[in-house]
Amino acid sequence: MSEKPTLFTSLSPALLHLYDLTDAVVVIIDVFRATSTIASALYNGAQYVIPVDAVPAAIEIGKKVNGIAAGERDGKLAEGLSHGNSPLEYTPDFIGGKILVLTTTNGTKLLHMALANGAGDIVTGSFPNLSVVCNYLIHKKKNVVLACAGWKDRFNMEDTLFAGAVIHRVKEHFTIHCDSSFMAEGLYAQHKGHLLEFSKNFTHYHRLVNRFGYIDDIEFCLTEDIANVLPLYQDEKLIKG
Amino acid sequence: MSEKPTLFTSLSPALLHLYDLTDAVVVIIDVFRATSTIASALYNGAQYVIPVDAVPAAIEIGKKVNGIAAGERDGKLAEGLSHGNSPLEYTPDFIGGKILVLTTTNGTKLLHMALANGAGDIVTGSFPNLSVVCNYLIHKKKNVVLACAGWKDRFNMEDTLFAGAVIHRVKEHFTIHCDSSFMAEGLYAQHKGHLLEFSKNFTHYHRLVNRFGYIDDIEFCLTEDIANVLPLYQDEKLIKG
Repeated sequence: MSEKPTLFTSLSPALLHLYDLTDAVVVIIDVFRATSTIASALYNGAQYVIPVDAVPAAIEIGKKVNGIAAGERDGKLAEGLSHGNSPLEYTPDFIGGKILVLTTTNGTKLLHMALANGAGDIVTGSFPNLSVVCNYLIHKKKNVVLACAGWKDRFNMEDTLFAGAVIHRVKEHFTIHCDSSFMAEGLYAQHKGHLLEFSKNFTHYHRLVNRFGYIDDIEFCLTEDIANVLPLYQDEKLIKG
Repeated sequence: MSEKPTLFTSLSPALLHLYDLTDAVVVIIDVFRATSTIASALYNGAQYVIPVDAVPAAIEIGKKVNGIAAGERDGKLAEGLSHGNSPLEYTPDFIGGKILVLTTTNGTKLLHMALANGAGDIVTGSFPNLSVVCNYLIHKKKNVVLACAGWKDRFNMEDTLFAGAVIHRVKEHFTIHCDSSFMAEGLYAQHKGHLLEFSKNFTHYHRLVNRFGYIDDIEFCLTEDIANVLPLYQDEKLIKG
């Protein structure tokens, strides 16, 4: 019998309840752009990030901690917030030493859903911090659930591809009996050499690039290990682990 | 502006509510084995198939219509039913002229869920009746939702592959802005030449073949157009359309 821990991939927040999160490391994945932005902010010196699931709460908490209240709804700057959800906004000059209070359409909501489902060990993952997330999973030797944020509960390509990238690197350390994981890894293995080109087919690419012109964001969010830091959830904050 | 109807793929019953079924053709997909078995029974001369979502109801209705009450739970013959969910059981000699009352873990439940969500135009699809399903979708010129049954709300490979096979053949007739559909078609395009070999990696293959020895079923269920008939839902029955 194998003594390896299990690994599952949840392709949408609406499927998260199918997996046991209580004794697992849960990786929150929202590649475009919440979890890439969290990696960027921490890598560039933010004290920590407070993920918040609603805009009014982000504004209120932002004031209370004297932080930067930021975030988006439907891919654009949320009303009442002064900063958006672009990883490129959070340069060392701007974010160094500061607290980021972040709310987004899918990723920060999913993190709170994971908490509500009993998750006790949560990190956030994105291509910019791929390696450090993989190393964490390998060293923890616990069950893993890769939780894709998707778009309003729909499956999306970029989060699934990142799940596939993780599986591609860690699979020999886990027992994987999960079609979602098998599909995700196959997808990544087929397209890893040309992710940016491949992304032009994604619905989210159309939203971000054709509607808002965020091509530099897309490129950052698909670059492996460009902000290689581990965002670890502790005491309602994401800290550099 | 394009005047083409839309096509979406729902990867799990737990995602079905995200799609508008009211003005669409809904294709119920449960490749291993419900929708393959429905195609087989109708192709081999069954009068019609009554899909039922619970075992006791299948037994009761079977008696009432003097039909064959059949079905499975968790991949094996359901208690109280005399026939299972293998497409190979339903030969012309056995099923010709008879009524099949069928209940399964995922497929027949999904059909009733689609009805509850307002679907008015329902067919069932599987590799054995791929071409006739595609022709129906092209000629109806209505929006399409490809509804995968999965396994207890989890994503599975075989239903997604079939959705991909449909998309591969009909895509120029539809507006497709849906990552699930894009993924499914890519998966099918990559593996269409070796589906049986590829299926050895699926969780459902392990369940059906390693636990129950149903390798002949798997082969039938992955053979395109071997029972090329259209199961059309009308008046609580699936009839040959």
